[in-house]
Amino acid sequence: MTRIFDFNLVHRDGDARVGRILTSHGVVETPVFMPVGTQATVKAMTPEELTQIGSTMILANTYHLHLRPGEQVVHAAGGLHSFMNWNGAILTDSGGFQVYSLAQTRKITEDGVQFQSHIDGSRHFFTPERAIEIQRALGPDIMMAFDECPPVESSREYLQQANERTIRWARRCRDALQEGDPTLFGIVQGGLHKDLRAKCAEALVELDLPGYALGGLQLGEDKDQFLEMVSHTTPLLPSDKPRYLMGVGTPLDFLETVERGVDMFDCVMPTRAGRNALLFTRCGRMNIRKAEFTNDMKPVDPECGCYTCQNYSRAYLRHLFVAQEILAARLATTHNLFFFIDLMARIREAIRSGVFQQFKREFLTRYLNPNSGAPHTTPATCCRRSRNERPVFDLTNETPSCE
Amino acid sequence: MTRIFDFNLVHRDGDARVGRILTSHGVVETPVFMPVGTQATVKAMTPEELTQIGSTMILANTYHLHLRPGEQVVHAAGGLHSFMNWNGAILTDSGGFQVYSLAQTRKITEDGVQFQSHIDGSRHFFTPERAIEIQRALGPDIMMAFDECPPVESSREYLQQANERTIRWARRCRDALQEGDPTLFGIVQGGLHKDLRAKCAEALVELDLPGYALGGLQLGEDKDQFLEMVSHTTPLLPSDKPRYLMGVGTPLDFLETVERGVDMFDCVMPTRAGRNALLFTRCGRMNIRKAEFTNDMKPVDPECGCYTCQNYSRAYLRHLFVAQEILAARLATTHNLFFFIDLMARIREAIRSGVFQQFKREFLTRYLNPNSGAPHTTPATCCRRSRNERPVFDLTNETPSCE
Repeated sequence: MTRIFDFNLVHRDGDARVGRILTSHGVVETPVFMPVGTQATVKAMTPEELTQIGSTMILANTYHLHLRPGEQVVHAAGGLHSFMNWNGAILTDSGGFQVYSLAQTRKITEDGVQFQSHIDGSRHFFTPERAIEIQRALGPDIMMAFDECPPVESSREYLQQANERTIRWARRCRDALQEGDPTLFGIVQGGLHKDLRAKCAEALVELDLPGYALGGLQLGEDKDQFLEMVSHTTPLLPSDKPRYLMGVGTPLDFLETVERGVDMFDCVMPTRAGRNALLFTRCGRMNIRKAEFTNDMKPVDPECGCYTCQNYSRAYLRHLFVAQEILAARLATTHNLFFFIDLMARIREAIRSGVFQQFKREFLTRYLNPNSGAPHTTPATCCRRSRNERPVFDLTNETPSCE
Repeated sequence: MTRIFDFNLVHRDGDARVGRILTSHGVVETPVFMPVGTQATVKAMTPEELTQIGSTMILANTYHLHLRPGEQVVHAAGGLHSFMNWNGAILTDSGGFQVYSLAQTRKITEDGVQFQSHIDGSRHFFTPERAIEIQRALGPDIMMAFDECPPVESSREYLQQANERTIRWARRCRDALQEGDPTLFGIVQGGLHKDLRAKCAEALVELDLPGYALGGLQLGEDKDQFLEMVSHTTPLLPSDKPRYLMGVGTPLDFLETVERGVDMFDCVMPTRAGRNALLFTRCGRMNIRKAEFTNDMKPVDPECGCYTCQNYSRAYLRHLFVAQEILAARLATTHNLFFFIDLMARIREAIRSGVFQQFKREFLTRYLNPNSGAPHTTPATCCRRSRNERPVFDLTNETPSCE
């Protein structure tokens, strides 16, 4: 099979860019948000529903699929697209992040990482070559280099060693490529150290890969540090290749980092928050379980065009969550993913029209302060949001980049 | 609002009948299987998906909706159809069965039943008039009389008292009707005593209700007793009115009781079994979790036209169940409901063509014995079925007629 991959920049507005990734499974307009389909399914959704809300590319997790059902099953089915009935583009991560964040008793050597499955304790050994081999069997459109993603609090000495290993491993991934393989992206690591980030970016750019990711961010650093690292790193990457900010993020993160030249995102936020009754609206987030919605017959977001908002009331959604119905997870996931994907479409439109800054300002005015009297905010359309709202789900046992 | 209700018999083949129920929410062809939407949602399904698989009428549970979200919320939304976005027909039960099977510390008097919610222990009092009032607020197309459904092992003396109370309560339900109310069906009780069944049927027929149900069956009696009660009771009911066998059943039950003149069915079987990985096929049931399906790229039932069988393999479904994905429940529910509803369509077609007996024989030959060499059974299309298969879900804490 000959694989198609190309990236074209179409518009710029400051450092914000609109581009088009051409794949064997369709055109992906960037900036793009990729829903997370960890176990070869975006939780609660069918592929047709993803297409309907405008999704063109999803992510799947190599670590999880290697453990369950095993890449040989997916390969026997004809690859991920066929196995899960998704005809859009797919990006697989390399398994690296989960090996460090989820697996048990891992041991890192120059050759690779030995670890135990978080499911059954079985022993596995990932090397750069093995990560490529597994991803090849899964058959995505884009695959990621096998990297090391150390904890943010690691010593500079350790971060430096890990960074150099990540560079050597990226080269081994590139050297392991065979004809017809998915397109390989590299991952820039380096913690919060600008020189390490620069060194990693420089070395990866030398490999002349078709795309580059920023890894190891939003793992505990504060927002300023996070944005500083993005601002520092994106200019070090070729402007004619897509830039992928892994595991990020929120509407606010998108606006701030698209502004800094990022093209691709994935995050469990909309799906996981949705399953936990937390809904995104133009006026901020709402916890739909709250008693105040018991008799509220308005849609979640009166301006939203999604299936959920077109057909169901807040009262019905609240009832479904209280009654613990599967349809609650479905309708909330549909709405949140639509909100994220629609936001990206609006961002692209703003960049095309050269009004990104204005769009960002107006969106955030309303999103962060629903009662500010911003241009589009009227009492009839504004969704309530509690200032003391806390997420109702517990992330402590979960990793941010897999579902 | 003027409510439409009419029933016409269209074909007969022996005692098996094809009919048409005309409601304000469309035509329902009988025999009909009604998916169970206990809490104003058929678990895991959207209304559009129900329509797509051919569902024309669903059931909702008065007891559950009274407790959560409360009939006043549903009424404020414009009734059940509007609240849950379902434009087909709806039948609500009276809450009777759940009050006896699910609620705590119930006390039955001539006036009604006092009970405590199984959710929070709150106290409630249902009378025949109150059951009508609640159902009126829910706004279905058909509502059920409030009955008493005693345990099958009750003494004859108690069953007789309960039976007479059920008759008096049915009259009180009829007397409580107001103009524009949903169509009221009566429920024939009487345990396994033919004389009590006859007495109840006779008294309810005197009320000249638009339809009649058989209640209190399949609660522990053996198959022969069950079928004998159906055979005994259906001839006592007017042939020009629909007959509804409550909480039943399996494909085998449908064939046996349609043959005895039953028109309407509801059961949690396809939905609940589906969520627990038990799938119905032309060649019997299969537990899709089994390891033998790990690499099985065939559809669940190669002859099935449902969304699941048209798009996914047994291997993928098995993976989704093992990985505990919501999509597993969706795809399995879709398949099982399609199988039940499609079976009813095939039964109606057989009755219309005057070949019901032949259809029943051929269906059961294959369904009960996949390796029998029956006309339509070939190795390529036959689904495996273990003889020692047990349901993987536990019904002990659940009632058979609500989800």
